[in-house]
Amino acid sequence: MAKRPLILVTNDDGITAPGIRKLIEVMTSLGDVVVVAPDTPQSGKGHAITLDATLYLTKVKSEITGVDEYTCSGTPADCVKIGIKEVMKMKPDLCVSGINHGSNASINVIYSGTMSAAIEAGIEGIPSIGFSLLDYDWDANFNGLESYVKKIAQNVLENGLPDGVVLNVNFPKLTAEKYKGIKVGRQARANWNEKFDKRVNPMKKEYYWLTGVFENLDGGEDTDEFALENNYISLVPVQFDLTAHHFIQKLNTWDL
Amino acid sequence: MAKRPLILVTNDDGITAPGIRKLIEVMTSLGDVVVVAPDTPQSGKGHAITLDATLYLTKVKSEITGVDEYTCSGTPADCVKIGIKEVMKMKPDLCVSGINHGSNASINVIYSGTMSAAIEAGIEGIPSIGFSLLDYDWDANFNGLESYVKKIAQNVLENGLPDGVVLNVNFPKLTAEKYKGIKVGRQARANWNEKFDKRVNPMKKEYYWLTGVFENLDGGEDTDEFALENNYISLVPVQFDLTAHHFIQKLNTWDL
Repeated sequence: MAKRPLILVTNDDGITAPGIRKLIEVMTSLGDVVVVAPDTPQSGKGHAITLDATLYLTKVKSEITGVDEYTCSGTPADCVKIGIKEVMKMKPDLCVSGINHGSNASINVIYSGTMSAAIEAGIEGIPSIGFSLLDYDWDANFNGLESYVKKIAQNVLENGLPDGVVLNVNFPKLTAEKYKGIKVGRQARANWNEKFDKRVNPMKKEYYWLTGVFENLDGGEDTDEFALENNYISLVPVQFDLTAHHFIQKLNTWDL
Repeated sequence: MAKRPLILVTNDDGITAPGIRKLIEVMTSLGDVVVVAPDTPQSGKGHAITLDATLYLTKVKSEITGVDEYTCSGTPADCVKIGIKEVMKMKPDLCVSGINHGSNASINVIYSGTMSAAIEAGIEGIPSIGFSLLDYDWDANFNGLESYVKKIAQNVLENGLPDGVVLNVNFPKLTAEKYKGIKVGRQARANWNEKFDKRVNPMKKEYYWLTGVFENLDGGEDTDEFALENNYISLVPVQFDLTAHHFIQKLNTWDL
């Protein structure tokens, strides 16, 4: 019998989030699971790493037989680094991150702690996937996603991924029977139109809350946003070579 | 006479860092300068934004006549967002970030607060450049970089940048007369081989410091690391469309 794959599970909403509990459940049907996840929510932490503070790693009791679970006091990227070096002491066959409570489609991939964990594993040469559901609620309904999560993870385990590529999977907020399937696409060009909510604290000092409205600037029908709006599960291959290769030739004509 | 361009200056080492003071000095020779920079060092913060805490914005006295300076309690990306929306209340003609104390070449671009500020401005459609010197010292020598910083910024002001592209400039740690010039290239494939320094705190609890050794995995002569090793200033165009376009066709053949 083939050896069961070793799978590292992490997220950015913290180890108790319903999204990661669902992801752990699905992964136990595919391999041996180790969980190293933040001890507190880390949404919007981007690809932050902890250089100026100490990190704590704590073994916690898992409700699932055979699953090893640890919390880490750091960011999602820290969890992957410490998970590989100090917990597993080897590279897993697969790293999965999520299931995030909220979208990591289009420009959200840049700010995403979920995707930073997946990308960190990719940098280490580990096949890796981030999963997100377009529902920010703690009580979001993750039922019905299981078969898709499993199928995508199985494909990655069987086919591998090219060096430098990880997958970004986003589920629309729908009951499972409404999903039209999985659509491969590209990251839509979008941004957040920020609004700063200015308030005055009890010491009479002004402060701000960052809020904003999402703006899709991209009319393409091959984008993740288009897929999600049309009830498809979006699958985008993501790379961490940020070079704008198409602009190198032009830059070489500049007077520098 | 042409209107002087409006320039937003930020960084991740904090407003008092010698690197940003040098950058402000150079930018005043090109346009009207507004500074919005973190009130504390933010190295390694990646593209973090502050969603779960308040932000303070404080006007500080500038030593340079005509320059407006503000500190923000948030991340570099927050500084750009609040700088545009609450300080300038308009989009500047140029955003520059740095000069960072330390490398943001190759994979460091992913973890970089300096580059996240530049990328944030790029997302907002503002021509934008991150500058870094390969010297982590607070007392790093920024003299001799001025003419290169100015020339690159002038080129961006004159030529603009395509939507979705920002520039990542890294200077080798050399005295200025040793620079061989500016070399346009791509991000080298590299990673950090982490080592966790495990210690025990006074309460007998184990904790870790994240450290690591940089590994260049890329023998290419067209990379930023190659340029820097050969005494060139490295210039890499960076994009925030993370789609691995080359893998879309293959993904469409998967059994999903």
